Amino acid sequence: MIVTRPVPITRIAGISSSRRRPPMTQDLTTMDGTAARTTRQRSGGRDGRRAERSGPRSGTRVPYIVRGIPPYDVMSEENLLRIEAAADRILWETGIEFRDDPVALDHWRRAGAKVEGVLVKFPPGLLREVLKTAPREFTQHARNPANSVQIGGRNVVFAPAYGSPFVMDLDKGRRFGTIEDFENFIKLAQASPWFHHSGGTICEPTDVPVNKRHLDMVYAHLKLSDRAFLGSVTAESRAEDSIEMARIVFGREFTDQNCVIMGNVNVNSPLVWDGTMTNSLRAYARANQAAIIVPFILGGAMGPVTSAGAIAQALAETMAGCALTQLERPGAPVIFGNFLSSMSLRSGSPTFGTPEPAVGSLVIGQLARRLGLPLRCSGNFTTSKLPDAQAMTEGTMSMLAAVHCGANYILHSAGFLDGLLSMSYEKFVLDTDLCGALHTYLAGVQVDDNQLAVDAFAEVGPGNHFFGCSHTMANYQTAFWDSETADNEPFEKWEQNGSVDAATRANKLWKKRLRDYEAPPLDAGTDEALRDFVARRKASMDDMWY
Amino acid sequence: MIVTRPVPITRIAGISSSRRRPPMTQDLTTMDGTAARTTRQRSGGRDGRRAERSGPRSGTRVPYIVRGIPPYDVMSEENLLRIEAAADRILWETGIEFRDDPVALDHWRRAGAKVEGVLVKFPPGLLREVLKTAPREFTQHARNPANSVQIGGRNVVFAPAYGSPFVMDLDKGRRFGTIEDFENFIKLAQASPWFHHSGGTICEPTDVPVNKRHLDMVYAHLKLSDRAFLGSVTAESRAEDSIEMARIVFGREFTDQNCVIMGNVNVNSPLVWDGTMTNSLRAYARANQAAIIVPFILGGAMGPVTSAGAIAQALAETMAGCALTQLERPGAPVIFGNFLSSMSLRSGSPTFGTPEPAVGSLVIGQLARRLGLPLRCSGNFTTSKLPDAQAMTEGTMSMLAAVHCGANYILHSAGFLDGLLSMSYEKFVLDTDLCGALHTYLAGVQVDDNQLAVDAFAEVGPGNHFFGCSHTMANYQTAFWDSETADNEPFEKWEQNGSVDAATRANKLWKKRLRDYEAPPLDAGTDEALRDFVARRKASMDDMWY
Repeated sequence: MIVTRPVPITRIAGISSSRRRPPMTQDLTTMDGTAARTTRQRSGGRDGRRAERSGPRSGTRVPYIVRGIPPYDVMSEENLLRIEAAADRILWETGIEFRDDPVALDHWRRAGAKVEGVLVKFPPGLLREVLKTAPREFTQHARNPANSVQIGGRNVVFAPAYGSPFVMDLDKGRRFGTIEDFENFIKLAQASPWFHHSGGTICEPTDVPVNKRHLDMVYAHLKLSDRAFLGSVTAESRAEDSIEMARIVFGREFTDQNCVIMGNVNVNSPLVWDGTMTNSLRAYARANQAAIIVPFILGGAMGPVTSAGAIAQALAETMAGCALTQLERPGAPVIFGNFLSSMSLRSGSPTFGTPEPAVGSLVIGQLARRLGLPLRCSGNFTTSKLPDAQAMTEGTMSMLAAVHCGANYILHSAGFLDGLLSMSYEKFVLDTDLCGALHTYLAGVQVDDNQLAVDAFAEVGPGNHFFGCSHTMANYQTAFWDSETADNEPFEKWEQNGSVDAATRANKLWKKRLRDYEAPPLDAGTDEALRDFVARRKASMDDMWY
Repeated sequence: MIVTRPVPITRIAGISSSRRRPPMTQDLTTMDGTAARTTRQRSGGRDGRRAERSGPRSGTRVPYIVRGIPPYDVMSEENLLRIEAAADRILWETGIEFRDDPVALDHWRRAGAKVEGVLVKFPPGLLREVLKTAPREFTQHARNPANSVQIGGRNVVFAPAYGSPFVMDLDKGRRFGTIEDFENFIKLAQASPWFHHSGGTICEPTDVPVNKRHLDMVYAHLKLSDRAFLGSVTAESRAEDSIEMARIVFGREFTDQNCVIMGNVNVNSPLVWDGTMTNSLRAYARANQAAIIVPFILGGAMGPVTSAGAIAQALAETMAGCALTQLERPGAPVIFGNFLSSMSLRSGSPTFGTPEPAVGSLVIGQLARRLGLPLRCSGNFTTSKLPDAQAMTEGTMSMLAAVHCGANYILHSAGFLDGLLSMSYEKFVLDTDLCGALHTYLAGVQVDDNQLAVDAFAEVGPGNHFFGCSHTMANYQTAFWDSETADNEPFEKWEQNGSVDAATRANKLWKKRLRDYEAPPLDAGTDEALRDFVARRKASMDDMWY
């Protein structure tokens, strides 16, 4: 199934392009008066060309979005200052525990924090001072240089969801994920023109031993996708393995100077960093690779039930994690992560896609920009068990919050159902379509003489239609986002076509996409070296299943 | 079914309360640092109390929303000026036709416009000058004074969708709407704590003659709801009848001095106002009642395919309609309306909930605020024929655009499927739930010592949960929006409960709400007078069926 074709090493390793600007850059005047860059990606082979042809009319295939509209700032300076002051109080008066990581405690001691056993208390201002070495923006290189992503600033990168133990589809229902499912989701992501990143643990491949999964996952990302991706964080050694595999592809020296892999690490909220996570985040930082620092706050459980308090907590926890990367290696890239959620206080169940985390995320975005750090926001969430109306109400609300808050990297852009527990094949396709629509949305409204169309009114005149006028003929091919999953037909035609719902159409689409998938070329020598590394590492370990 | 109980006339007619502030007003400091008012509504009898008890934990039952977060401004001053200049050019160089309304042409001549036959050309600046008499904000009185709505400023009013010939439910599918359906939707809206307004032609009662429908519709709004509502605009005489019925309830003098009914009039885009609409809008203005002025632009058909041009056209058409109300009666309330949409340029079908109208609406919001007029935006739209994933992706995207753009009155907040053609019982319930979530969302993040919860961190400490801490106990009853239609249960419990989707849950809910509905009290004498008016007017006409 997977076609391997030899291509020049420079195309694969991304080395020669590391200082190159993305090709075919155009400057457009956007609605907020500044210049947005729309970058047309190189074709990326047959697959890329097909995607361009079959893609919606509106929206250009780009390696990442450069937003044409500003983030949505909702909170006053005065209230932001109060939240920052509350975070400072939490950091100094309550503190954060760093468990099972003496090196981290040493870092904090040397930096000037008060260390009491595993509890670290941070004098006000300390973390902001440490964070000054963190870059505001950086490139994560992809093995296909045309797919390298710029993280920070006005850029937005969509990646699939991460971490579900289960997968679902309409044919077979819910079951544990396998490596085949994992590979399928990489293929579906790679086939979509509306993703920019291959993600990480798209689903858990539960048929592979726990201690060997990361090897198969990283190999699959490198083999089946030519986009940037995430490595493992579930143990320091697995983080190291992931980085080592990236070095095989990108070269040791290039990797030491450039970000080619990232790791997503979670705080053990409230106010605990455990050693597994800090050892992994330090491994990424040490290798000059980006850690994404993410609190996981379900309000009422791992944080207060009130939004302002949960936001202050998130700020405290994230600043501490981000600062630790800078103590490990000043200047290492790091991303300020955000994952707010809520719970049903009737049942104790977590809830997603609710209004509190949506508006809270907008505030977190403001706080991250004040810190000068690139922002990750969680994306498309729902507790629905089906790709139904609930799934997309909650999913659309949370995904829009992610793009409105100015997130530069949106990890869970597609696939989640069932809280965080299941990746759905159908939902993945529906969410991909929403990602496409957001390309057009984030471009905003262009204002120039052609877009204003004043002459068209003179041509058409009052009461006549614009169907055939010269302005329409000149612009219709790029006008209007055109969804692949929506049915816009008249009722009667929809009925003739079988009266199917969106989930049923999505079911057909993911199967077609898997059938049509073609692997991006990977140099045979690199492939061989990766396989060899995986085999050697696997041979050195006994299987662990939990 | 409908219980009529005598109540004091002042409660019904709203007269004594016209100068009264809403009761139980609290001032809260909101996230953007200004004061938001959360107004707890009077109970409104047994129905109101039940709604409060069964309502979600978060969000207070209010007569309208006073937003705690600002609108989302996306366009620069410079580009807004270019759009305004384009609108001025369209108005002066191409002009707008006013067909079959010699009075309107006289108004324009006297105001200084250039009138050539039915074509009116507007010197730059003329319309803005005329619009100076229009109020920035006004009250629409409801027959229950506690339900009167404030339109303009930071206020947001949700009303049901308007105008579908068809209705749908999961049991009987799609069929023509009847007066029974019409009454059902009024009852469902009245029963929801998340609406603020009863709307107008929620669906077409196609079993009533065309020329008599307005009488039954206005009577149903006044009888079955005690919220503010819209009257007919399909003929000048029907507008007059609607206003006359409002006078029976509110009194002739009160009605002459206060807005108690509104009419929603459409431009015949592009650039045509037909006599039916302008005669109706003048009837509303003459009676000092509010006209809502709405262009209906499907880009590529009734306007250009490019957003900037469609927005310039909308601005031109709406300003002309709004200004005409001021020429008819200076100072009459008027609302700047917005209805942008897109089309599939493959099939020619209109599309809804797409990104271009969403981001375009944000720009329209900025333009309306620059004019100083209250804004109506269209709300929840979809072309889906089922209450499925497509319906709520498109519906949520368009509804969020409506609240983000700063709309003061959102006409189509619930019910649409199938383009504008069908009102769905299930979708109505799902959308109502989204309206509830938006109450919480628009409140934003409150910042005070309790919300910041700093002491809770000291109490709970690192690594412990917040379930039973004193801050949680003190705040959980008001924490977190809790949807009525979402299923947040674990997968296994959802499966045990029958594995149903959101649409199936909504099907149960609308039936329960209709069963539980209780009519708000209406004074027997007023009721009698209304019935008498309807009977006399009907007796004066032959039936017309088209």
